[in-house]
Amino acid sequence: MAAINAANADWVPSYGADHFTERLKAVVSELFETEVAIYPVATGTAANALALSQIAPPYGAVYCHETAHIVTDECAAPEFFTGGAKLLGLPSADGKITPAPLRAAIALANEMGVHHVQPAAVSLTQATEWGTVYDVAELSALTAVAKHHRLPVHMDGARFANALVHLRCSPAAATWKAGIDVLSLGATKNGALCAEAVVFFNPALAEQFERRRKRAGHLWSKLRFLSAQLLAYLHDDLWLHNARQANAMATQLAQGLQHVAGARLLQAVQANEVFMVLPEKLVAALENAGFLFYRWPWRLVSDGTAIRLVTTYATVSADVDAIIRAAQQFA
Amino acid sequence: MAAINAANADWVPSYGADHFTERLKAVVSELFETEVAIYPVATGTAANALALSQIAPPYGAVYCHETAHIVTDECAAPEFFTGGAKLLGLPSADGKITPAPLRAAIALANEMGVHHVQPAAVSLTQATEWGTVYDVAELSALTAVAKHHRLPVHMDGARFANALVHLRCSPAAATWKAGIDVLSLGATKNGALCAEAVVFFNPALAEQFERRRKRAGHLWSKLRFLSAQLLAYLHDDLWLHNARQANAMATQLAQGLQHVAGARLLQAVQANEVFMVLPEKLVAALENAGFLFYRWPWRLVSDGTAIRLVTTYATVSADVDAIIRAAQQFA
Amino acid sequence: MAAINAANADWVPSYGADHFTERLKAVVSELFETEVAIYPVATGTAANALALSQIAPPYGAVYCHETAHIVTDECAAPEFFTGGAKLLGLPSADGKITPAPLRAAIALANEMGVHHVQPAAVSLTQATEWGTVYDVAELSALTAVAKHHRLPVHMDGARFANALVHLRCSPAAATWKAGIDVLSLGATKNGALCAEAVVFFNPALAEQFERRRKRAGHLWSKLRFLSAQLLAYLHDDLWLHNARQANAMATQLAQGLQHVAGARLLQAVQANEVFMVLPEKLVAALENAGFLFYRWPWRLVSDGTAIRLVTTYATVSADVDAIIRAAQQFA
Amino acid sequence: MAAINAANADWVPSYGADHFTERLKAVVSELFETEVAIYPVATGTAANALALSQIAPPYGAVYCHETAHIVTDECAAPEFFTGGAKLLGLPSADGKITPAPLRAAIALANEMGVHHVQPAAVSLTQATEWGTVYDVAELSALTAVAKHHRLPVHMDGARFANALVHLRCSPAAATWKAGIDVLSLGATKNGALCAEAVVFFNPALAEQFERRRKRAGHLWSKLRFLSAQLLAYLHDDLWLHNARQANAMATQLAQGLQHVAGARLLQAVQANEVFMVLPEKLVAALENAGFLFYRWPWRLVSDGTAIRLVTTYATVSADVDAIIRAAQQFA
Repeated sequence: MAAINAANADWVPSYGADHFTERLKAVVSELFETEVAIYPVATGTAANALALSQIAPPYGAVYCHETAHIVTDECAAPEFFTGGAKLLGLPSADGKITPAPLRAAIALANEMGVHHVQPAAVSLTQATEWGTVYDVAELSALTAVAKHHRLPVHMDGARFANALVHLRCSPAAATWKAGIDVLSLGATKNGALCAEAVVFFNPALAEQFERRRKRAGHLWSKLRFLSAQLLAYLHDDLWLHNARQANAMATQLAQGLQHVAGARLLQAVQANEVFMVLPEKLVAALENAGFLFYRWPWRLVSDGTAIRLVTTYATVSADVDAIIRAAQQFA
Repeated sequence: MAAINAANADWVPSYGADHFTERLKAVVSELFETEVAIYPVATGTAANALALSQIAPPYGAVYCHETAHIVTDECAAPEFFTGGAKLLGLPSADGKITPAPLRAAIALANEMGVHHVQPAAVSLTQATEWGTVYDVAELSALTAVAKHHRLPVHMDGARFANALVHLRCSPAAATWKAGIDVLSLGATKNGALCAEAVVFFNPALAEQFERRRKRAGHLWSKLRFLSAQLLAYLHDDLWLHNARQANAMATQLAQGLQHVAGARLLQAVQANEVFMVLPEKLVAALENAGFLFYRWPWRLVSDGTAIRLVTTYATVSADVDAIIRAAQQFA
Repeated sequence: MAAINAANADWVPSYGADHFTERLKAVVSELFETEVAIYPVATGTAANALALSQIAPPYGAVYCHETAHIVTDECAAPEFFTGGAKLLGLPSADGKITPAPLRAAIALANEMGVHHVQPAAVSLTQATEWGTVYDVAELSALTAVAKHHRLPVHMDGARFANALVHLRCSPAAATWKAGIDVLSLGATKNGALCAEAVVFFNPALAEQFERRRKRAGHLWSKLRFLSAQLLAYLHDDLWLHNARQANAMATQLAQGLQHVAGARLLQAVQANEVFMVLPEKLVAALENAGFLFYRWPWRLVSDGTAIRLVTTYATVSADVDAIIRAAQQFA
Repeated sequence: MAAINAANADWVPSYGADHFTERLKAVVSELFETEVAIYPVATGTAANALALSQIAPPYGAVYCHETAHIVTDECAAPEFFTGGAKLLGLPSADGKITPAPLRAAIALANEMGVHHVQPAAVSLTQATEWGTVYDVAELSALTAVAKHHRLPVHMDGARFANALVHLRCSPAAATWKAGIDVLSLGATKNGALCAEAVVFFNPALAEQFERRRKRAGHLWSKLRFLSAQLLAYLHDDLWLHNARQANAMATQLAQGLQHVAGARLLQAVQANEVFMVLPEKLVAALENAGFLFYRWPWRLVSDGTAIRLVTTYATVSADVDAIIRAAQQFA
């Protein structure tokens, strides 16, 4: 907020030719230890769909997890931006794509030839939609398959900061050194008003990307207000600080809830999301008590109701304790 | 062929204002016992993708079988023609969509709201990609779910004639009376050079469809050459005669092959396709002997190799006997 | 800025289900004296392209001025969002479309039939790209032609406030009462950080528009930050106050500059833009002196260089005087 | 026709892996004195739109004549296939694009940067929509501008044979030696049932074009029926023979008609089209007498009505004499 207010004081050139945006490029290049091309946009859907349109032709296939956000939650934005490319969902229990099904899917495509979409790109989510985190070895193994078939790799990093604090490695190690070509770097879920960025680790891959952003209506005339948010976000490790808090709260939440009668943890908690099965009566009681969470439709369970609980940079211990206490009481 | 030659003798108005095309509309309307709007095109992919683009908006979901031809074999043509709509594949073992998963998928979409594509249409294949045929009761049960949610229903009828001779009912009973709104009526696989047609059973649904065909490059200037093929195809039950022969040969083929050692029939044979598991050594031997068939990638089996064998109007008993004999000998 | 800061203090439901957005709908409905559907977005290109995609099919024609912003400055965003519709530019010297060429263009399309795109919509800019303003009678005459052919009318109102203070009429009189169906209501050029809105005067016309916004990546999770800007913008006539200042400065600028030797005013100054021909040497001298304006490429002149000067809510008399003095001195 | 009948006798692999299609590639490569990649399709709109989609990105500009067929007569097919690229029409009286306005248009685009579509390709029509023919020097001058800016050049050759017999040069001299990169080679207007081809003079430019054709529904399963038509068309100079007849008849028609009272020839007659102004009463009388021609909407004239008369390979002297006599009599 302070950064936006400060940016407002300035009169600067429009459409990204301002010093905020220039500084952002320098800061992110230093942070990732390589020269990047970076394009701020206002939403994660825009960042993902624009990134994919840059690396997949309209007759291409983007391999991703079958419950990836780009598949289930973006109202066909990737199909729109790519001009009709196909998202081919690969299954797994924990939200991570693994090499074997990816290899098999590419082999099938190659065998079918022209009747099938062309293998074009891989998109993975970090942290995943199941709140899990690929470790660096898993990333490298997966991107090795992609590289072998000359497919660029996109990372949907809406929760990248949460993954990074879990991994305890450098941003570079978690991305391009592990084979990632383009990153949707999210800030909105972790504190910004409206700021994400598409980051290309090889600037040559970003050719004419600027026109894609423009024709999608995502080039702001007063772009400094996006860049300023991202600068503040990355300054003094604020992003990591926020993510650490969110992750810690998720861990605390999971530890507390799993002792409630009838509770079952569905996934390891490695970021800021907790997936649990709770008895339906308990779920309903928590809803009635005003707690906000999401009934998770992507896993059928027979021993209750699957829910997703999300913590944020603003969640504090008392919030977590409140829902644990309520759950214990209702159970 | 004779019909094309005859059409060549004529000078007629172009772009469909010819008497062949006019007669086609009358013939098909009589055949289906209702006034139709009909648009000949040269390929099945064009027919399907154009039909879907007419009934699904770019932010829509088309529910279909997970191995539907529109999903696996048309290189994202439906996504292209609709402007990015999503094909949501529903599972089943025999290629038929059933009401329960359709109902569940629509419910999920409605629950997710704006983040998800909008339920827009249902597309089923008759005969299916697994060589099975929906009976009229199955069609009606499925279209009832669609109608309940106001979704138009498309039938990919690349093998419609084969299904019809299996069903032994009228074209009307197999389509609009069972809730089908638009049919891709195939002729190419059953004898034509290059002729399919998009048939709307409610002409009002075809508004501006002509422009969709034109802008896709599928409006022929000499359209009579498509219409003439379809007229000949439907004349004197030629289409049913052809399909009967193909179906009979498939039945004979399945009966013969299933007694070969190691053979297992994967699906009921109801049209002109036979899906079998054969020992890999036998499959390879048949390929070496020059028999043409397709290794089927859409079903993993552990007891051999799944193959698809297709018969046509031009297949004769001797052809079938030859492959059966060869299989028995190699086995 | 204050409004954004205030909005930040609140925890509210995301994706537009917040009380700011609800209030915005009420405020704009009252302001325009009719129930509207309103969708805030961050850029004018997004507002225009989304609005057009709602009213023009991919095989449609959008009639507009040949130098409309949607034609020249949005990198084919309207073509992208509509899925390929055609912008057909109509000529005029002052940036306003007139009934006669519109009528002729529609007649031509109807005569050409399916080979031509279908007349689908009219889009006009208010104030125009030439800094002129349609009066209400001109608007009504133009929309009457559109209505006669059942074409909805879009108004690109990036400078709507500037037009309104020139017209001295109510927002309703300047829009739906004069036949406008959908308005891109601009705020960014007139003081907001990043806020525009698509306003439908007949909410029924907005069906599923929400999904179009979502799949374009223009639905903010924290939408309140857009709604809050618009509420502040419209509160207490701030938007009109800002526009009045900008318009007054443009008038003052034109009056001063036109007395400079070699200067020629190209258009009546009715909003916040001044189009002038100045001697090339003078133009270069002003550029060297650090004044920021735009060499206008859309009019060939032989007596100098055409330039566009834009004033804003933040322009003050002293700024205007400075450039006039400099021009007099350099001339 | 004979060629199609002959092709019917054969059983060959489908989707273009047949010996007709293979031979077509060899024949056309020899004819054009360079190795080509060639893709038969059924319509000229498909050939043009597919070709353009291969060379222009969705954020690109295709420079062409303002009355090019791709602009006026293809119902936005190029916009559809390219995913929204813009056709920028350049003016000229005779249908030919000239270097100066092309250069100016590219310069404007470069100056406007990201707000404007990116210069991507040039498309010219040979013979033009005005029945005129670029000579080789004109082609070379135009393509030199394109090459200077690294823009590939497409030739819409719906009437390529007519141009070629006018030019009396080799197919190579009229195309790639003059800077053409990709040709829509038309046959339908000059005798085929339904056959056009996209010809790339640099096969590397055709990468993945096959998938574009497939996903547009333009890959025939029985592709031999297209290839066979083109083989017959090019065999023994049949195409040139046909074009010579059509051109000769156009010349004879123009010579006869221009002596009718009130007649005025609008363009030089260099191919198989005649553009004339005739008194409206005479035009109406000819229509009533059953002569078929087109009232030409793309030129406003004050001294009568502009019409277009087209001759074909099947037009004979007696046909021409008949309309001349009728015109003389009615005049």
